[in-house]
Amino acid sequence: MKQLPYLQKANTPFRDRDVTKVADIIHDWNGDKINGVGLIGAPLSKSSISHSGACFAPGTIRKALAGYSTYSIEEKVDLAEIVVQELGDIMMHVTNISESQNRVYETLSQLLVKNPDWLPIVLGGDNSITYPSIKGFAQAKGKVGVIQFDAHHDVRNLEDGGPSNGTPFRSLLESKTIEGEHLVQIGIRDFSNSKPYYDYVNKNSVTVYTMKDVRRMSMMQIIQESLKKLKDQVDSVYVSVDMDVVDQAQAPGCPAIGPGGMDAQDLLDAVAFLGEHSVVEGLEIVEIDPTVDFRDMTSRLAAHVILQFLKGKFKKRLI
Amino acid sequence: MKQLPYLQKANTPFRDRDVTKVADIIHDWNGDKINGVGLIGAPLSKSSISHSGACFAPGTIRKALAGYSTYSIEEKVDLAEIVVQELGDIMMHVTNISESQNRVYETLSQLLVKNPDWLPIVLGGDNSITYPSIKGFAQAKGKVGVIQFDAHHDVRNLEDGGPSNGTPFRSLLESKTIEGEHLVQIGIRDFSNSKPYYDYVNKNSVTVYTMKDVRRMSMMQIIQESLKKLKDQVDSVYVSVDMDVVDQAQAPGCPAIGPGGMDAQDLLDAVAFLGEHSVVEGLEIVEIDPTVDFRDMTSRLAAHVILQFLKGKFKKRLI
Amino acid sequence: MKQLPYLQKANTPFRDRDVTKVADIIHDWNGDKINGVGLIGAPLSKSSISHSGACFAPGTIRKALAGYSTYSIEEKVDLAEIVVQELGDIMMHVTNISESQNRVYETLSQLLVKNPDWLPIVLGGDNSITYPSIKGFAQAKGKVGVIQFDAHHDVRNLEDGGPSNGTPFRSLLESKTIEGEHLVQIGIRDFSNSKPYYDYVNKNSVTVYTMKDVRRMSMMQIIQESLKKLKDQVDSVYVSVDMDVVDQAQAPGCPAIGPGGMDAQDLLDAVAFLGEHSVVEGLEIVEIDPTVDFRDMTSRLAAHVILQFLKGKFKKRLI
Amino acid sequence: MKQLPYLQKANTPFRDRDVTKVADIIHDWNGDKINGVGLIGAPLSKSSISHSGACFAPGTIRKALAGYSTYSIEEKVDLAEIVVQELGDIMMHVTNISESQNRVYETLSQLLVKNPDWLPIVLGGDNSITYPSIKGFAQAKGKVGVIQFDAHHDVRNLEDGGPSNGTPFRSLLESKTIEGEHLVQIGIRDFSNSKPYYDYVNKNSVTVYTMKDVRRMSMMQIIQESLKKLKDQVDSVYVSVDMDVVDQAQAPGCPAIGPGGMDAQDLLDAVAFLGEHSVVEGLEIVEIDPTVDFRDMTSRLAAHVILQFLKGKFKKRLI
Amino acid sequence: MKQLPYLQKANTPFRDRDVTKVADIIHDWNGDKINGVGLIGAPLSKSSISHSGACFAPGTIRKALAGYSTYSIEEKVDLAEIVVQELGDIMMHVTNISESQNRVYETLSQLLVKNPDWLPIVLGGDNSITYPSIKGFAQAKGKVGVIQFDAHHDVRNLEDGGPSNGTPFRSLLESKTIEGEHLVQIGIRDFSNSKPYYDYVNKNSVTVYTMKDVRRMSMMQIIQESLKKLKDQVDSVYVSVDMDVVDQAQAPGCPAIGPGGMDAQDLLDAVAFLGEHSVVEGLEIVEIDPTVDFRDMTSRLAAHVILQFLKGKFKKRLI
Amino acid sequence: MKQLPYLQKANTPFRDRDVTKVADIIHDWNGDKINGVGLIGAPLSKSSISHSGACFAPGTIRKALAGYSTYSIEEKVDLAEIVVQELGDIMMHVTNISESQNRVYETLSQLLVKNPDWLPIVLGGDNSITYPSIKGFAQAKGKVGVIQFDAHHDVRNLEDGGPSNGTPFRSLLESKTIEGEHLVQIGIRDFSNSKPYYDYVNKNSVTVYTMKDVRRMSMMQIIQESLKKLKDQVDSVYVSVDMDVVDQAQAPGCPAIGPGGMDAQDLLDAVAFLGEHSVVEGLEIVEIDPTVDFRDMTSRLAAHVILQFLKGKFKKRLI
Repeated sequence: MKQLPYLQKANTPFRDRDVTKVADIIHDWNGDKINGVGLIGAPLSKSSISHSGACFAPGTIRKALAGYSTYSIEEKVDLAEIVVQELGDIMMHVTNISESQNRVYETLSQLLVKNPDWLPIVLGGDNSITYPSIKGFAQAKGKVGVIQFDAHHDVRNLEDGGPSNGTPFRSLLESKTIEGEHLVQIGIRDFSNSKPYYDYVNKNSVTVYTMKDVRRMSMMQIIQESLKKLKDQVDSVYVSVDMDVVDQAQAPGCPAIGPGGMDAQDLLDAVAFLGEHSVVEGLEIVEIDPTVDFRDMTSRLAAHVILQFLKGKFKKRLI
Repeated sequence: MKQLPYLQKANTPFRDRDVTKVADIIHDWNGDKINGVGLIGAPLSKSSISHSGACFAPGTIRKALAGYSTYSIEEKVDLAEIVVQELGDIMMHVTNISESQNRVYETLSQLLVKNPDWLPIVLGGDNSITYPSIKGFAQAKGKVGVIQFDAHHDVRNLEDGGPSNGTPFRSLLESKTIEGEHLVQIGIRDFSNSKPYYDYVNKNSVTVYTMKDVRRMSMMQIIQESLKKLKDQVDSVYVSVDMDVVDQAQAPGCPAIGPGGMDAQDLLDAVAFLGEHSVVEGLEIVEIDPTVDFRDMTSRLAAHVILQFLKGKFKKRLI
Repeated sequence: MKQLPYLQKANTPFRDRDVTKVADIIHDWNGDKINGVGLIGAPLSKSSISHSGACFAPGTIRKALAGYSTYSIEEKVDLAEIVVQELGDIMMHVTNISESQNRVYETLSQLLVKNPDWLPIVLGGDNSITYPSIKGFAQAKGKVGVIQFDAHHDVRNLEDGGPSNGTPFRSLLESKTIEGEHLVQIGIRDFSNSKPYYDYVNKNSVTVYTMKDVRRMSMMQIIQESLKKLKDQVDSVYVSVDMDVVDQAQAPGCPAIGPGGMDAQDLLDAVAFLGEHSVVEGLEIVEIDPTVDFRDMTSRLAAHVILQFLKGKFKKRLI
Repeated sequence: MKQLPYLQKANTPFRDRDVTKVADIIHDWNGDKINGVGLIGAPLSKSSISHSGACFAPGTIRKALAGYSTYSIEEKVDLAEIVVQELGDIMMHVTNISESQNRVYETLSQLLVKNPDWLPIVLGGDNSITYPSIKGFAQAKGKVGVIQFDAHHDVRNLEDGGPSNGTPFRSLLESKTIEGEHLVQIGIRDFSNSKPYYDYVNKNSVTVYTMKDVRRMSMMQIIQESLKKLKDQVDSVYVSVDMDVVDQAQAPGCPAIGPGGMDAQDLLDAVAFLGEHSVVEGLEIVEIDPTVDFRDMTSRLAAHVILQFLKGKFKKRLI
Repeated sequence: MKQLPYLQKANTPFRDRDVTKVADIIHDWNGDKINGVGLIGAPLSKSSISHSGACFAPGTIRKALAGYSTYSIEEKVDLAEIVVQELGDIMMHVTNISESQNRVYETLSQLLVKNPDWLPIVLGGDNSITYPSIKGFAQAKGKVGVIQFDAHHDVRNLEDGGPSNGTPFRSLLESKTIEGEHLVQIGIRDFSNSKPYYDYVNKNSVTVYTMKDVRRMSMMQIIQESLKKLKDQVDSVYVSVDMDVVDQAQAPGCPAIGPGGMDAQDLLDAVAFLGEHSVVEGLEIVEIDPTVDFRDMTSRLAAHVILQFLKGKFKKRLI
Repeated sequence: MKQLPYLQKANTPFRDRDVTKVADIIHDWNGDKINGVGLIGAPLSKSSISHSGACFAPGTIRKALAGYSTYSIEEKVDLAEIVVQELGDIMMHVTNISESQNRVYETLSQLLVKNPDWLPIVLGGDNSITYPSIKGFAQAKGKVGVIQFDAHHDVRNLEDGGPSNGTPFRSLLESKTIEGEHLVQIGIRDFSNSKPYYDYVNKNSVTVYTMKDVRRMSMMQIIQESLKKLKDQVDSVYVSVDMDVVDQAQAPGCPAIGPGGMDAQDLLDAVAFLGEHSVVEGLEIVEIDPTVDFRDMTSRLAAHVILQFLKGKFKKRLI
């Protein structure tokens, strides 16, 4: 019925013919071979030690992402030319948490094995998805290095609560999915970790940059050192961003907020740099609880982190 | 890729095989002849005298509606058998309010003329959409009677601000779209209207039930009287629900809330009754501002009003 | 500069030439003899046992009041003809609470003695202002009867915290400002008062209607009984409304909210009735904390209570 | 150090020597035989189908309860004489939901078997705790009847999500823990349940009072009928209160709020009546999510429900 | 009545005899020739592309401003000696947005033509007021240069929505009100603008400093360069501050918030510097939506921006 | 009853055997001689000029503190070895503010005189407690120097409101409790203080570092200068932290928030440095109002400030 020029799909946002939105470059996956970047949601947060609505974060990050323009005026590159696949969400089980975690692993590993050219961006969820995600990633990629932005080591023992958002790196190390020397933790914060866990990561040869290191060195120096250390030793690097690495004033929507955190710009710069390297083949963002955020600020920041990653990849013609 | 049993569209809600949700009976309109009930959004609130986010209400009402089950245990009827068409939203102009109002009229009248068997449910938006909506409705239906649930007469002069959410019934009467004796106002509230406007509706032979009338008579008596009065005089009856007719404790998300309002159950009963009559061929819900509501309570109530209307229609095999 | 037709005082609300707002009948007092109703604010809440922002209530009640229309469609009376004096606020001391209470007494008594035709409406503040207010009122009026709408007796001992919002009726009775048989308490709630205080009011011959009484009798019966009992024994009746008498769902902005409270309509009906009697010469509203309210609902209800009082007075030509 | 008269335990509330608070009659359990009423928390809500913070409700209900006075002015009884045992919370597992549910069963059954004179008041948590709670209760009590206040049947299939807050009565019936004819559901709401589940409860001879029944009959009639039906057939009656049975305006803090619900006063009256009967030996309150409530209104109502239960018991000298 | 020492105008704040507040130096304009700084409100936000309550910002900025002290301890200057005129608000039309914009133009141009010594501070409102404001300003001032602090170019096409908050600089350039080389945009942000619009400003010789420039250069260098460039080419410089130039953590109350923005201190320093130059003769602040702000933080920052401007002017004896 | 392995005290948080929480090192004081650090609450805020809920801050700071781990990864020290005494709260009078202030003095002075080895950490409360706290401190310590982090001088006259949160340093200077040259004020902010008060502190030889000084010098330089100046002239140094010294984006929960404030990290660094010196023997934190904070951010920062103090003390073996 052409006579109805004003009738449109419900909730259609305003469209300016001269603006390309990120929404315009995200396409629902049709099942074909995936080439380049693709988003996948892992909306699990029942595994969190404290109450968390991180299961809602894939939704809020996607919404924030969709609203951005595709153009980087800083680098004069326009993402309008690329396509980002939207793979959807991994369905979580209502009452069986380990089943949910296994679904993350199964889905990631199957997808990656069949689609070696897929650059996954995993939208958590809480930090417990990191273990099955990276396990799935490693299944397809071989020897994996991880650069983890986090206020916490996340190597808690598994006896006191099972595989929670406090344990993913313990599981990764214990299961030999990754080796300690292939893990770099950046942004570890004072009074937010215990001595036994610091001893544990040390014993496992994990590289640790505390917030004191971040304040005293430049982020570029840290990230260059980190990548340099990893890139000759591993087949692929996965970047894990726990948004609570950022200071509470700039990322107010994480379950475990606090002062003394990283400046958001440092995180943005680091991820853009990492995106520029072909060895970096995966990114995840975890630990945003939109139910306690202010105006989705933390999801907006997460979306910007993703854009920095895409910008890096695009600048170097990696996508 | 059948190997991915857990990958699903983003934001898919939990599904219980034994539950039919209203979401399951709402289908996007494919452009064919419309038969039965269809939803259409009119997300306009720049026309409001006071700041209003009523433009977001079509979205929140739809979301609340989708989450309900289809089964009425009170009447032992299951709406699972029917189909509700989703026509989408009428696109509003960013800076030209009268153009937006005209789009409501154009879209409604064209649709109704071509689809005489469509039972429109119009989701406002503010009360200013009532004039173009009913004008469009009348275009197709002939002589129209209106049962208006409202705390206010909404017959303000048009000199002091143009066609706003305070003027729709003034416009309808002045333009002879409807006649005063074919308008019934239920729920008019103390200290919420001026004497000149009461004199105006009186002079125009509008039937008015104040909240004092509502408290002293039963709602069933009022609504039966109202419908009886209209049904032999008009070709079709349109039900206009300004949610601010309900008391502020039960409909906290309207721009103009206050005490002394109608009990929500009375509104629900009245609309179910109206739905049972074939002469009632349209329903609109206006004046919900989700940005000031508490937990979308008012949109939940609006969705329930719609279900009562559907229940009435379905019980009498009118859909 | 007549060339500037659109320049107006900051924050001027929309004006409709056909609507008289309550704002239009409230005039700042010029210091002349006061005749009729006048508002006065007593913004004190540091005297509260629990943290309270009731000091902000005079502001929010005035704002809600100003926005109402003057016309009562239920009674077909228009308050547009009367003038309500705005006397302003009594300045509170920053750190000396008893000085603040004394200022309430001094100001009220001086004003009332010089203006015997003033019908004061006192806007609290917390319930501690009731003692100095009524003491000032009694100074001018002689034997005073009080009808108190309240969930609590408010006769706490003065040893455990001094003259707080829990003690006003203890002070009034102990100081013989009023006699127990001239006090009627309506709406006293279960599990919100202690046995010793119930024994105390009983011993002092106070009339008590509990919420069980309110649920089982009609409010009209209670209020008629109450006024009948008082009017031959006293020179003047003062109505004290602690908004926490109303159920938490309808008056969510009181410090001490709870379920099982009075229906707002009952309060509105009662005050309208009281307003119709010439012996009723004062009204106060206390215990609204706008900082914890939802959309100023409780202040809106308070403003409606005031309008009911004015409606009663105006209907009987008492103003 | 007696010289420090003003130093007290942190967070000590104001104390009035003439007021007994419910806090004063609640004592931490010392491990001795329990006689009379005792509170126990089951802070589980990871089992909920939709995101829920019901795990925080034991805390907010206890806080609301502690703040009430012990005196019922309506019935002239003072609970100051009784002792309520505080047993504490059942520790939940971080990532194993069925283990958590089993802990509820183990703890309840062990406690009840050893303490036959304990009248448990179980503070949920979501509705999934109902199955292990009643299973534990039945272990000690024999044939159990249940009076369930709920908007929902809660008999979902277990295939689509495991033992969640939607399945407890399915589990109770399937496991023969209770028989269908010993279950009474009061307050079942329109468009909130599916036909297959209504058929299921019918087939199992469950007694159902819908909200239409509640609106048309008096609550006293319903509750008397219900208890009469049960008391000769069972050894013990357990009262399960899902707070979402109450209308959204009065219980805004439940995950599944909606209009058309029960009036809070009806629930309060019903529980007081039930408390008066010796066959009623257990009470649970579930489905309050304090993170979405307004000013803990729903927890305040829950605390009042508990007081009504205690009032009934105390009036009849059952405690 | 001198006997009433404590009766004062409602809502009078605490007064300390040794403190001069900004409120004390703001005087309602009496219609005489205006000399020096004067505030004028343009409460328009119906012109915004996305829902905006920026119409409330003149009120919140004024309130924040009034509460500051007049003394700058950093520069040892006291604004107590100056007078700031309060001209009031421009009345907006309820339903005719272009009429409202025209009123801004008419009022500004008339006032400025008659009062060449007026230094206007325009309080928006959304960014759409910038076109009529500067058009009015240019009417009186001749060739105008603009320094725009903004995350966005705001040069959208006018076809897709008319003169909105996304189009003001397009309108200014297209209408030749200002020339491209007389426009400096500072703070333009990544992924917040499209390539076509960047091409457009480039083609028009607009000077653009992106956030990358801001991070790499000092703000002082940027602002000195900017002013130097303009001051010999234009008769007068107007400073336009869209508060969304500031990072979301420091200006959370703008409609279009995001990470990667300007540090508030940089904006404060820049405006103080600009205030020191006589060629800078106007300032506007736009795009604050107080309904979504946190504790009026963004309005507090806006008020501080105004004070920096006044400080600069006062230090150089320009007022 | 050992059979109940899962029954635990209500509200017990999750415990990880490998983590020591600060909660684990805080012990309720048993009345013995106090050695080392001890917390004491002064929950007074009725003394504030503007409405303040600072009385709740001792509770929120304690809660934030309890949740931190004891391990400083930055300095590789673990506070697990020390004990922090919890002395409780000083009971405030309900209606007598000067009595409350006197209780602070009496309690502090008595405790300190008897426990010279106690390092008090005083949790306000508003800034009015600073006068009685330091007066009590001085009673025991002799000549006292104060390093005050504050946006305000807090030397208001006492005539206009009595001993409020604006007057403590006036009272300390006037009463000769401390001398002006022994007071260092850091972080004094523009447009937040009056010229007469700046003149007053100057006349009294107080050392003032404005925010301009803080921006231009390094915090380490300022704090070293400050301590150097004091340590030879006084017997003991007391650190007073008014949290409003920090910028509003990082400390949003202070009554008097604003832009242009100190970076939180500077405060943290300064307090850690001060903690390292034996002459620093007391710390207080004031002016946090948790009722207006966002997610207790400001209390979390306060807790971190306390940990920095402890870290300094512990590193130097001062505790």
